[in-house]
Amino acid sequence: MAGYDPREFQALTFHDAVPKFRDGSDTPRAYLERCLATIAAHEPVVRAYAALNADGARAAADASTARWKAGEPLSPIDGLPISIKDLLETKDMPTEMGCEAYRGNFPKRDNAAVWALRQAGAVVLGKTVTAELGGSHPGPTTNPFDPARTPGGSSSGSAAAVAARMVPAALGTQVGGSIIRPAAYCGNVALKPSQGGINRGERQATSMSTHGVHAGSIEDMWQVALEIASRCGGDRGGPGLTGPSAPPAAAKPDRLIVLETEGWAGLDARSRSAFESLLENLRRVGVTLVRRGDHPWVEALEQAVGNARALCNAITSWENRWYQRNLIDEHPDGVSERAKAVVAQAEAMTPAEYQTRLVERQAAQLRHAAVAPIADAIITLACPGPAPLWSGDAPGKPLAPRPTGDFVFNAPSSMLFAPAVTVPLMAVDGMPVGVQVMGQRQQEARVTALARWLLTNVPAVVVR
Amino acid sequence: MAGYDPREFQALTFHDAVPKFRDGSDTPRAYLERCLATIAAHEPVVRAYAALNADGARAAADASTARWKAGEPLSPIDGLPISIKDLLETKDMPTEMGCEAYRGNFPKRDNAAVWALRQAGAVVLGKTVTAELGGSHPGPTTNPFDPARTPGGSSSGSAAAVAARMVPAALGTQVGGSIIRPAAYCGNVALKPSQGGINRGERQATSMSTHGVHAGSIEDMWQVALEIASRCGGDRGGPGLTGPSAPPAAAKPDRLIVLETEGWAGLDARSRSAFESLLENLRRVGVTLVRRGDHPWVEALEQAVGNARALCNAITSWENRWYQRNLIDEHPDGVSERAKAVVAQAEAMTPAEYQTRLVERQAAQLRHAAVAPIADAIITLACPGPAPLWSGDAPGKPLAPRPTGDFVFNAPSSMLFAPAVTVPLMAVDGMPVGVQVMGQRQQEARVTALARWLLTNVPAVVVR
Repeated sequence: MAGYDPREFQALTFHDAVPKFRDGSDTPRAYLERCLATIAAHEPVVRAYAALNADGARAAADASTARWKAGEPLSPIDGLPISIKDLLETKDMPTEMGCEAYRGNFPKRDNAAVWALRQAGAVVLGKTVTAELGGSHPGPTTNPFDPARTPGGSSSGSAAAVAARMVPAALGTQVGGSIIRPAAYCGNVALKPSQGGINRGERQATSMSTHGVHAGSIEDMWQVALEIASRCGGDRGGPGLTGPSAPPAAAKPDRLIVLETEGWAGLDARSRSAFESLLENLRRVGVTLVRRGDHPWVEALEQAVGNARALCNAITSWENRWYQRNLIDEHPDGVSERAKAVVAQAEAMTPAEYQTRLVERQAAQLRHAAVAPIADAIITLACPGPAPLWSGDAPGKPLAPRPTGDFVFNAPSSMLFAPAVTVPLMAVDGMPVGVQVMGQRQQEARVTALARWLLTNVPAVVVR
Repeated sequence: MAGYDPREFQALTFHDAVPKFRDGSDTPRAYLERCLATIAAHEPVVRAYAALNADGARAAADASTARWKAGEPLSPIDGLPISIKDLLETKDMPTEMGCEAYRGNFPKRDNAAVWALRQAGAVVLGKTVTAELGGSHPGPTTNPFDPARTPGGSSSGSAAAVAARMVPAALGTQVGGSIIRPAAYCGNVALKPSQGGINRGERQATSMSTHGVHAGSIEDMWQVALEIASRCGGDRGGPGLTGPSAPPAAAKPDRLIVLETEGWAGLDARSRSAFESLLENLRRVGVTLVRRGDHPWVEALEQAVGNARALCNAITSWENRWYQRNLIDEHPDGVSERAKAVVAQAEAMTPAEYQTRLVERQAAQLRHAAVAPIADAIITLACPGPAPLWSGDAPGKPLAPRPTGDFVFNAPSSMLFAPAVTVPLMAVDGMPVGVQVMGQRQQEARVTALARWLLTNVPAVVVR
């Protein structure tokens, strides 16, 4: 049995190495070499990486070392080794998107966020495995806490690389649940910003995708997100993520809304018990909880997101249908049957059906805005229990459901365009089970401050 | 001297051929062959095309002919030969974007709008020349009414192909003024929809780009736009263009706001005189005009768009900077000095400066919404006089300003996200000078109905 315990697990952090870079007792190059050694030790089982550029990273780390020596770092994350989900283009590594049709794809461009990371001095170390095209057909990555289990997806490699202490931070992306859930299965902290919080560059064809950050610490999570957004902003047309230039101080919530979501009914008894224990711990430290029975506006929000999973699937598959049809037409054998089935469903939709889903989404967003005065934020599970066991689809058998786990607890923040932070506060059966703090739009700094307080003030729950 | 006269010029139309397809006296294949003959005759001087696929078009036209014979057309535009601005991907022709760096680029994908056109039975005939990357560095296309003049840009080839009667319709795109202005210089009608009205597919990285339609008639313009949007909708997250399934009937405006814009001060005397004569003609047929001196909200709108050109340039160049920096880094000799200068300007901007421009844009949009009760729509020039003479940048000399003409009259509808229709109602010095009707967001059908009424009820103005 896996032995993860949130009270004991020490993730890799970067922010606390910075004073040593200043006094010369450590260097970005030495930090990088430790990361590379960890990768060498664990990659054969974890398989987090689609590509590595150790030479390029060493050159970047040496340049960073020189800047710290000269007292002229480019930012607080100068020298931070970071890995990039393989949906995002990087000029020095291929971008294969976990998809056979993209094998060897090497566009030699940097996504806007990758460009910003390099401007801030971060050391771009590798591309992390993504489920095919950011969907649900999994790559080879295993969960660092149990290789028989999924790390979640689609940001599988980013979550696993952070969990395996290979890097202190990694970029992920989320459309339905692809940052928050794998982070929760892997004991990361992670930020899924408000819709458009981090500039997606050319990757703006769907209305719910966001870039976000997986990290071993709240401090690194915030700093990476901020350094990106302060250089390349958010998506075109919006203000982008803003906030303090250093990680927000911990802030105690007075009141939190507990959102059950449609995931509640199918939750296993041990995970539900762990979450109820965590809520009890919250009450003990003085946080008032507001649940669906306590306030009609919370009940209204629950109902508005009660079909979030189907709504997210419909909207996203419609938005992807032309792109994916083109890909399938050009590479009939280069796309999984799973992805083809999604396109076929989307092709049965009409524009009017899509528009109807948009109106439902907008109505739910109004329900979410309405609860702002009721509580500081929302707390809910970040995944439906520990990462499921997963050994791949069996040839000739029907496709297994959601091989990277179910995004039922993640669809609400996606459809609400709301910022969410995964907080690793529970273990069930020796595996991480994260919770999430979800805020109003543009409140990235606020949810980060609340998450930081929870991490340090609420006793974690372990159910064995 | 060129001899364009809006009262005499007969553009190529498709909608009136449909009854002949039904009774068998004409066929889509024969229609196409007439288009190909016109292209053969005029292309050596006009140079509207970056690529042609005559074989593919003939096969598509034959299939359409068979459908009409069987009484089973796919839509009212089944068989309509159409050309596609070479920024949009087509699976059967290269997409070179007027840019040396993209020479030979052949992604074998259909943009969502092109996919929709094929679903509706339209005959995709060729790719039309665009100014480099949709910017201002011109391609080789000449104005069909005077080969010494620009056709405008960046939808240069689409406007020229329609003006030269090569096709009844063509797709263009606009960020600042790239549909409305070339259409105005070339005597087209054209629709620039509300922001997001037609699904841009993967081309969604800038906040003000729109797909639109150049055509020889209002009827074909509307039908093409509607057939696309009814199949692939608008941009992700929005409702997209909707309206009647047949071209809206002409509707008389009771009141029109006359918007001068920042272009007014620099307008040549003959073009100003032509426009004032047209306004007089409007009054004579019973339309009340509301100008900046007549209503404080109109004055407020004028002031809100008084710096539209600089605002559009700043926002768009910021949104393009990462993409274009990557392109320049990869192809240092493959991008014009003109485009490089724009990127350099954008790289001097901060996220805060960009956000400031967004707030200005949003404030202007509120000023525009405020005038909705005052009038049926806005009328303004679609270009600052006849197409300028243009013979290319001289090597070793400073770059000539705006070689495809000035978008000063087009920036307002772009920044307001407002639908606009170019109406060919004037000639100055024997060249077309269009006006535009601009409506509130999502009012594509309304501005089309008003433009249709103007075309048939307001005497055109010719200033020689």
